[in-house]
Amino acid sequence: MATQRILDFLATRRPDGPCLVVDLDVVRDNFHAFEKALPDSKIFYAVKANPAPEVLRLLAQLGSSFDTASVAEVEMALDAGATPDRISFGNTIKKERDVQRAFALGIRLFAVDCVEEVEKIARVAPGSRVFCRVLTDGAGAEWPLSRKFGCVPAMAVDVLRHAKALGLDAHGVSFHVGSQQCDLRAWDRALGDAKMVFSTLEKEGIVLKMVNMGGGFPTRYLKDVPVAQAYGQAIFSALRKHFGNEIPETIIEPGRGMVGNAGVIKSEVVLISKKADNDNVRWVYLDIGKFGGLAETMDEAIRYPIATPRDGDEVAPCVLAGPTCDSADVLYEKTPYPLPLSLTIGDEVLIEGTGAYTTTYSAVAFNGFEPLRAYVI
Amino acid sequence: MATQRILDFLATRRPDGPCLVVDLDVVRDNFHAFEKALPDSKIFYAVKANPAPEVLRLLAQLGSSFDTASVAEVEMALDAGATPDRISFGNTIKKERDVQRAFALGIRLFAVDCVEEVEKIARVAPGSRVFCRVLTDGAGAEWPLSRKFGCVPAMAVDVLRHAKALGLDAHGVSFHVGSQQCDLRAWDRALGDAKMVFSTLEKEGIVLKMVNMGGGFPTRYLKDVPVAQAYGQAIFSALRKHFGNEIPETIIEPGRGMVGNAGVIKSEVVLISKKADNDNVRWVYLDIGKFGGLAETMDEAIRYPIATPRDGDEVAPCVLAGPTCDSADVLYEKTPYPLPLSLTIGDEVLIEGTGAYTTTYSAVAFNGFEPLRAYVI
Repeated sequence: MATQRILDFLATRRPDGPCLVVDLDVVRDNFHAFEKALPDSKIFYAVKANPAPEVLRLLAQLGSSFDTASVAEVEMALDAGATPDRISFGNTIKKERDVQRAFALGIRLFAVDCVEEVEKIARVAPGSRVFCRVLTDGAGAEWPLSRKFGCVPAMAVDVLRHAKALGLDAHGVSFHVGSQQCDLRAWDRALGDAKMVFSTLEKEGIVLKMVNMGGGFPTRYLKDVPVAQAYGQAIFSALRKHFGNEIPETIIEPGRGMVGNAGVIKSEVVLISKKADNDNVRWVYLDIGKFGGLAETMDEAIRYPIATPRDGDEVAPCVLAGPTCDSADVLYEKTPYPLPLSLTIGDEVLIEGTGAYTTTYSAVAFNGFEPLRAYVI
Repeated sequence: MATQRILDFLATRRPDGPCLVVDLDVVRDNFHAFEKALPDSKIFYAVKANPAPEVLRLLAQLGSSFDTASVAEVEMALDAGATPDRISFGNTIKKERDVQRAFALGIRLFAVDCVEEVEKIARVAPGSRVFCRVLTDGAGAEWPLSRKFGCVPAMAVDVLRHAKALGLDAHGVSFHVGSQQCDLRAWDRALGDAKMVFSTLEKEGIVLKMVNMGGGFPTRYLKDVPVAQAYGQAIFSALRKHFGNEIPETIIEPGRGMVGNAGVIKSEVVLISKKADNDNVRWVYLDIGKFGGLAETMDEAIRYPIATPRDGDEVAPCVLAGPTCDSADVLYEKTPYPLPLSLTIGDEVLIEGTGAYTTTYSAVAFNGFEPLRAYVI
């Protein structure tokens, strides 16, 4: 999955220490694939997935809008050239003074999932559009979203009614099917819930206009996943089924799907050892781990493909761990990772599909190790 | 657990956003408590627990030595005034060029747990002292250490024999009973293993001199734990039992025990909401979470005491979560946290016992949020 440009960069520049290299050509291709798959949806790139200025500038030029999680991310999107009308403040958990700062920066679109959040927005961002996030069950996702965000659809009706009563624009409904969602029916179920909220409020004269279908579009890790096109078709069918001829405006918020497969982390094998002479599993220690950018290996949720210079040689299972003095800094242990028996201390390995949710997750200085460096080419 | 100095600082300075405040008087008291409890042990402070320059300078002045995890931490200890002979490179996972850099900085004491690491040290840090880490089962620890570090005692014999053969000083054995270890028998079992290594090698004419008893000394979270004095007595008894009249030099490496209870994180309630009208658990969202410094709430392993301005009012269980758009950013859910029903959005809460393993764990910019700021007073 490492592109020739990434391989050439690493061969020429030979950066010392672990680093992420992101190929903008892949990001561009992904953007166009989403446009083609869902031509009627507006793309709001989830900035949190990878806020590198080069990535944001490219996407702003391509016409993308931006889903942001904080005032700092709003500012990054503005700095990259996005106008405020192309920015959504998509975090349902906001300090009132941050809503106020975003409003001052021109932001008029906010996510909510309770009346308490609606009241903050009504106070300091009057007249803004709000969309209410509904809970989905997240079944089928590799990184399920739990109940942290959203409310049940019946409560979303109350939340949006309250927004309208406080002078806000009750704009729509959002959901998130869970990151790396491979079950296309998840969108169908969630769109059914969204339609229920639309219908109930319509009877009261409140006409919603937008469905924010969130992210969850998978990037290619070890398993093959349906491609963007298949997602587009499934989603369009579900929209037709539930909304008939009155399909609302739709938004999608790809993050991992936009940048995940655009990046590769170069790492080095620091140590290979056993714990006892009769151990049948080797421990392989890399110079990057859970606290250096690979936080999504938590609970071994995401299994990155790893390329080594010895690929093709006979493999055997390894426990894969990071370089810190923290026993939790183990990447794959429950399901050991097969790696070549000939792998040697000092070998460079490529951890693929790491363009999303790596650099910014990285610890600021744990064990004295620097945060993950990134090169965007 | 917030000292009056910390409370006064927060009341006077009123810092915006989440922050850690560390009281150096508590660090000083902890250092003296360890000295008193284990008068014959050398204290090597585990820099990774909290590498704030003020903490390191104070401990250097008090006569502490330092356990470091990387070349950057070696440099921090040197900058704080420690001489190289007071610094141990305690990470068993080291790049050969980092061993070389540490050696160039004067470091002569290295941890190992396999022959591969011994060979690196023999090549680039000739003549240095090495100690081999043995595996302990970690039973009784709140943050168990798994098998990531160390080898079985029988293998430690081979490792140290190999070190001697390569011209290194086979200096001793180390173990770590697991962080926040509350079972005093854990030290007894580990010291028994250490003695076995000593005895076996002595028969071959290799005389070890040192036992590094690691850290694991708990700080006071929600439960009462035996005080330092009790630990000292139990450890001394175990040393007598296993080593008789030939007690070796001993080292301890407190990290959490030195700074954990010296720090308090000030945080703000961003949102309190429910997911459905009939929910019996409130969701309370703070402006700090798993990615902002509270990484040790992973698997709800460590349960910090939280003080609120409404303490004394009737309480009810809450799910406690952080401010990011990441569904994994939930602090306590499996065992909900009891908080006052009167708790209100905007309230400031104090998360106590957070002086260790917080600032440096914090993500560099996840969701655009700044890393945790720290004030050392």
